[in-house]
Amino acid sequence: MILHGYWRSGAAYRTRIALNLKGLTYDQHGVDLRTGAQKSDAFLALNPQGLVPALEIATKEGGAVLTQSPAILEWLEEAHPVPPLLPADPVDRAHVRAMAALIGCDIHPLNNLRVGKALREAFGADQAIVDGWAARWILPGFKALERLVTVHGDGWCFGAAPTLADCYLIPQIYSARRFNVPLEAFPRLLAIDLAARTHPAFVAAHPDNQPDAD
Amino acid sequence: MILHGYWRSGAAYRTRIALNLKGLTYDQHGVDLRTGAQKSDAFLALNPQGLVPALEIATKEGGAVLTQSPAILEWLEEAHPVPPLLPADPVDRAHVRAMAALIGCDIHPLNNLRVGKALREAFGADQAIVDGWAARWILPGFKALERLVTVHGDGWCFGAAPTLADCYLIPQIYSARRFNVPLEAFPRLLAIDLAARTHPAFVAAHPDNQPDAD
Repeated sequence: MILHGYWRSGAAYRTRIALNLKGLTYDQHGVDLRTGAQKSDAFLALNPQGLVPALEIATKEGGAVLTQSPAILEWLEEAHPVPPLLPADPVDRAHVRAMAALIGCDIHPLNNLRVGKALREAFGADQAIVDGWAARWILPGFKALERLVTVHGDGWCFGAAPTLADCYLIPQIYSARRFNVPLEAFPRLLAIDLAARTHPAFVAAHPDNQPDAD
Repeated sequence: MILHGYWRSGAAYRTRIALNLKGLTYDQHGVDLRTGAQKSDAFLALNPQGLVPALEIATKEGGAVLTQSPAILEWLEEAHPVPPLLPADPVDRAHVRAMAALIGCDIHPLNNLRVGKALREAFGADQAIVDGWAARWILPGFKALERLVTVHGDGWCFGAAPTLADCYLIPQIYSARRFNVPLEAFPRLLAIDLAARTHPAFVAAHPDNQPDAD
């Protein structure tokens, strides 16, 4: 497998965590979002949307390119079910997926690199304004997530082992720190972040440990 | 089942389409996002995130509240597998989920009601600016989706029957029109929208046909 990603992309980061948790090996091709490499003809041929991550996989038909991290993570769970990243019970699965979507739909899309760029272009926003914009979505999202983890978590977001929800949470905490968002109101989320710092799958997925990091 | 939603919410709209495609019956409780009803104590007790939709379901343990439309739709597919809204092959499933996430993560979160409100508050944006902001995300997203539908579609986004991807697309087209985004560059998406106008599950889910529409 070849993962086309970018070291600091939250969506690529969450995909690396899931691949590592599944114990899969993969090559990495860095796509430098700062220089617009995601809009090159070569990358657009792989992913017409021009976003990372994109995962090249082998199939009986000769290969396929999977895009969109939520779709890649669900594919991973179906194609490589052990260890599971979703619980067995359908309602529990819905709870884990809701935590993942809370981050993947209601936080991350509003404060990734292309949105910061758009705020600068459209409204002349500076870094302090962009940081404030990020906090506007991270703080209420994390407040709701902290409550959900209080109900469902036991060391990780749901139960006592990492799930898809943790694949989303850890990159979002990394991003929150880059935007200088205060996190002390979320002790359970911070405890999960602390656990991830010594978990090999999470450590290996950290942005600083990627071949394209600078 | 009770669906807590709002007639014009894209996330509630896509959930209604999926429930209808599955042939399920449900009561609806309107949550008026314009008056802040989603932040009432009663609704926060159901969904601490204060967003629609929330789906109350019966379980062996007495009931559960499911939140986040991507999680609700996956639960629907697992709990009520017929008719399927995902194909059988894992790679095909990933393609459908990628189209859904393209809309659910890269378009819709950037131009829903709360983001428009935030742009007005933070940057003094007027309706024309908000419309332009919506177009900034809808146009490139739809351009990529049009290419994916060209590859995978046969009357609907993927193949010849509605899938999860169509549950996301039709509400996003409805929203694009409200933001005055020109859609003539996307003939395949418009053909799907035309098909949905005479499909009973989509017609019954349309915002104008909801009890809380005004």
